[in-house]
Amino acid sequence: MAIILGDHQYGKAESRLVRIHRDKPRHEIRDLNVTTALRGPFDPACLVGDQSDVLPTDTQKNTAYAFARSKGVSSLEHFGLDLARHFVTDIGPVEGARIEIEEYAWQRAIVDGVEHDHTWTRSGQEVRTAAVTVDATGEYVIGGFKDLVLLKSTGSEFAGFLTNEYTTLPETHDRVMATSLVAKWRFTSTEVAWDEVYAGVKAIMIREFAVLQSLALQQTLWHMGKAVLEAFPSIAEVRLTAPNKHHFVVDLSPFGLENPGEVFFAADRPYGLIEATVLRDDAPDAHEAWRASAGLA
Amino acid sequence: MAIILGDHQYGKAESRLVRIHRDKPRHEIRDLNVTTALRGPFDPACLVGDQSDVLPTDTQKNTAYAFARSKGVSSLEHFGLDLARHFVTDIGPVEGARIEIEEYAWQRAIVDGVEHDHTWTRSGQEVRTAAVTVDATGEYVIGGFKDLVLLKSTGSEFAGFLTNEYTTLPETHDRVMATSLVAKWRFTSTEVAWDEVYAGVKAIMIREFAVLQSLALQQTLWHMGKAVLEAFPSIAEVRLTAPNKHHFVVDLSPFGLENPGEVFFAADRPYGLIEATVLRDDAPDAHEAWRASAGLA
Amino acid sequence: MAIILGDHQYGKAESRLVRIHRDKPRHEIRDLNVTTALRGPFDPACLVGDQSDVLPTDTQKNTAYAFARSKGVSSLEHFGLDLARHFVTDIGPVEGARIEIEEYAWQRAIVDGVEHDHTWTRSGQEVRTAAVTVDATGEYVIGGFKDLVLLKSTGSEFAGFLTNEYTTLPETHDRVMATSLVAKWRFTSTEVAWDEVYAGVKAIMIREFAVLQSLALQQTLWHMGKAVLEAFPSIAEVRLTAPNKHHFVVDLSPFGLENPGEVFFAADRPYGLIEATVLRDDAPDAHEAWRASAGLA
Amino acid sequence: MAIILGDHQYGKAESRLVRIHRDKPRHEIRDLNVTTALRGPFDPACLVGDQSDVLPTDTQKNTAYAFARSKGVSSLEHFGLDLARHFVTDIGPVEGARIEIEEYAWQRAIVDGVEHDHTWTRSGQEVRTAAVTVDATGEYVIGGFKDLVLLKSTGSEFAGFLTNEYTTLPETHDRVMATSLVAKWRFTSTEVAWDEVYAGVKAIMIREFAVLQSLALQQTLWHMGKAVLEAFPSIAEVRLTAPNKHHFVVDLSPFGLENPGEVFFAADRPYGLIEATVLRDDAPDAHEAWRASAGLA
Repeated sequence: MAIILGDHQYGKAESRLVRIHRDKPRHEIRDLNVTTALRGPFDPACLVGDQSDVLPTDTQKNTAYAFARSKGVSSLEHFGLDLARHFVTDIGPVEGARIEIEEYAWQRAIVDGVEHDHTWTRSGQEVRTAAVTVDATGEYVIGGFKDLVLLKSTGSEFAGFLTNEYTTLPETHDRVMATSLVAKWRFTSTEVAWDEVYAGVKAIMIREFAVLQSLALQQTLWHMGKAVLEAFPSIAEVRLTAPNKHHFVVDLSPFGLENPGEVFFAADRPYGLIEATVLRDDAPDAHEAWRASAGLA
Repeated sequence: MAIILGDHQYGKAESRLVRIHRDKPRHEIRDLNVTTALRGPFDPACLVGDQSDVLPTDTQKNTAYAFARSKGVSSLEHFGLDLARHFVTDIGPVEGARIEIEEYAWQRAIVDGVEHDHTWTRSGQEVRTAAVTVDATGEYVIGGFKDLVLLKSTGSEFAGFLTNEYTTLPETHDRVMATSLVAKWRFTSTEVAWDEVYAGVKAIMIREFAVLQSLALQQTLWHMGKAVLEAFPSIAEVRLTAPNKHHFVVDLSPFGLENPGEVFFAADRPYGLIEATVLRDDAPDAHEAWRASAGLA
Repeated sequence: MAIILGDHQYGKAESRLVRIHRDKPRHEIRDLNVTTALRGPFDPACLVGDQSDVLPTDTQKNTAYAFARSKGVSSLEHFGLDLARHFVTDIGPVEGARIEIEEYAWQRAIVDGVEHDHTWTRSGQEVRTAAVTVDATGEYVIGGFKDLVLLKSTGSEFAGFLTNEYTTLPETHDRVMATSLVAKWRFTSTEVAWDEVYAGVKAIMIREFAVLQSLALQQTLWHMGKAVLEAFPSIAEVRLTAPNKHHFVVDLSPFGLENPGEVFFAADRPYGLIEATVLRDDAPDAHEAWRASAGLA
Repeated sequence: MAIILGDHQYGKAESRLVRIHRDKPRHEIRDLNVTTALRGPFDPACLVGDQSDVLPTDTQKNTAYAFARSKGVSSLEHFGLDLARHFVTDIGPVEGARIEIEEYAWQRAIVDGVEHDHTWTRSGQEVRTAAVTVDATGEYVIGGFKDLVLLKSTGSEFAGFLTNEYTTLPETHDRVMATSLVAKWRFTSTEVAWDEVYAGVKAIMIREFAVLQSLALQQTLWHMGKAVLEAFPSIAEVRLTAPNKHHFVVDLSPFGLENPGEVFFAADRPYGLIEATVLRDDAPDAHEAWRASAGLA
């Protein structure tokens, strides 16, 4: 028996990078959080502290800022591909690169009814995400978002479930359903209209959440994933994680009041947690596409 | 010399209360975080543990949920007044009540281009706030918001400042200015179109942030406060707290690149912090209007 | 009627400053979060953007780092006094300075049973705090901590309280009591053994929490404050904020189990919130000692 | 091509459970955050909303509280095994169960130099973790912790690294090294003195961090993992994630001051991020031991 080194990677996490495109009077903004990770034969760094094949994480960060200037940021997926290809192609020892990016959305300030050229407010709750992996097996792009908070005040049921001696939950045929959705989708192409597809996927998921008479959050997730795959041939797999953010009907009967689904206590913890993957049965091998770095949750 | 009890208060903090109005097919939602605090001669509870004048915080919470049902939630200021008046009027020993409320904004889901009747997504970054105080001296309402994140990519300068032996900062005549604004405004009336005024105040502050060629964040705050007071006679005082969220131009010269205000590092800490009050010179006495409970930051 | 500028201040918040004293083989560490704020006639900066009397927040930050080197950090109260005196004395226009500091505690790593000379682990939950104000009226020091999490599994009651039509809470004579205590104490001297007093105050508060058969959290706070004032003549006033972190006995009767105070659900929100001040009846005027900057919660 | 359902699971996340053992005057406390997830043929719930095989997450939560009473909590690993075995054995459709638990440490309050019987303060920064998986292939236990914050003020170097046109980092032979360590270790037995091993693993990791003259954080991680495997035959694999929490030497030369590693700016973001696995070359197959639920980070 011997003790050996297994999987390892290293990089720079959470470089906050804001790119202003100001070549026209109407400026554009992309507000990113960039994490890079490199994979390869870095065993000497671990085993004996030999750094000769180690490109410092500080250099990785510098590269991200320099590329933002020299190549621009047309979308986070594209920017991630630029960076990943560079590390694998140009840095000798590197065998694989993983780039994870978050993007924070801004909307133009409205001044006297008109969109302003160079002022914005932070919009929305959700954070757009991308994870790009490039290695000897190919190029992999995962789009996504996190923290898309959704709520419907009717059109959700939960009944007919398995019971045992620890079950106290009553059935319900009309409840509030709310979640803070995390979605990730794997592309099978790197030639994609990234921003358009992002907007489309998000709209479809919101639509499915809204229109389905939901018998369980699981069912809603399945419909979300299926609808996305039906709409976008460039996507092969969708992974969804959805906390069931419980909204409990408050018992007002001690105070002589009915409460027909009007006043709720929104609980923090615990919460249900539903996870599901929806994919094409001919989806190509994901290799390391889903191997995250720990940089961004 | 004796040791005595000074100011004290007690209450229930952060009751998460969601109110759905569902009497029409198009539901409405108000999503609140309610903190109540009572003031009065509760010295025996402190000194000897005698609770006979203490209305439990659990009862305060129940009252909030019951009132949400019986009186509805037309606005957080109005709901706060309902609660505060009840505690002072109906609960014998209570001399003063402080109600602090946060509201989280939701926007209707768009399904096939149409607003949905009962589905929403959480919108925006800012949280609307209200603080209502009722006591023997009167009724006081403070409206506000926190976490309104604003950024302008030009139209901001900082130059001509005082220097000493610890100064290294260069002057700039074109920088990114960004903040996460906290604003609170004190009304002199309780007969106000609360939701309309809120929307108006927010729009004015965004406008001033956008259009002023800013020589300092202080100056922007002054203009914000002044414009609000000019527009709304029912407001006597505006308090503003604004972190200067630094966006540093990244030095790309080591890589042979210019960076004319296009690529920035968005720093977390430290940050500048500017606080200012703008008020009418004939503003009535605020008494305890600004005495917060510690429940909501 | 005119619109005027009221209270204002500005500074640099949350400069993270770590000071290693390494003149001996056994290193020492002080890990601080420093916020500085200046007060004075800075109206021109607000009204017309004239910065000629404004010492940049960047310079304030530089000063903190330079002083940490040149004067050392013997305690956070002392370091705060050094900084505040400098700003008021040496910077012409400044009339008042407010320095707020947090300190994060470290304990020496234990290696083979022995304390290590230059390695530490972060210890405890509580964060030590200090707030120093220097202005024309004098020098004011407030010591404190936040987030000291305490729990007792018996020795706490809540009964005999006021009830009304919204009361559903049962009385209890044996409950879990838990809090995350925030305490601040005002000194009447600047010649204090700061670190010793800090340790003493903390020990007293923990002792009172433990030994008092508590009839209400209010009563516990009173005993804490009173005991501190009795022990330390240099302290004139103690302010306490204590969330009542509810631990609910889980009803296990549906599963045929008794639960005599053994299994609890620890709730996040809502929580009770108790605030109290204990002071000497001859405490000197606090002037602006309690006027916080918004930098550190 | 068809669209199919892939991996899925569901459960209750973050049930906050406090267990007081009070059969003796000296009480004991275990403070847990419990997440349960079930795996199996729950496709009908997803595809058509049929819940007949779905044990509600509410029931899972009830089970955790009931077991805490009826079986006690001797350690989080043992408690996790109790729960996982129950779900797989007693609930018909369930094929696999994943139990993730966090534990928050408390230390006894010291009153007049003596440990108190029923009062504690929250101690330390690190959170102990366990993840138990039971399915048809066997039983798997992963111990661990997160957020163990470590710092050494000397004994760390970084030099001899690969450079390219984006490298600006200078070499250093004496720097501060700090991290917030996440460690997880996989057992090959379920008959373990869980609490003893936990204490042992933690002590070894702290020792290695302290005593190694580190040439890179990678090297420190390797030594940590190796030392744990050498000490505990019941552990087959160690996974480590370590942010490199940068402490930058502040340049005080503009102020005429040297700074020989005494005053540091502790940066928030970005940070280096190092991940490494150390294992025995004959480690048994992990099957789904590392497949997390998304409940606890």
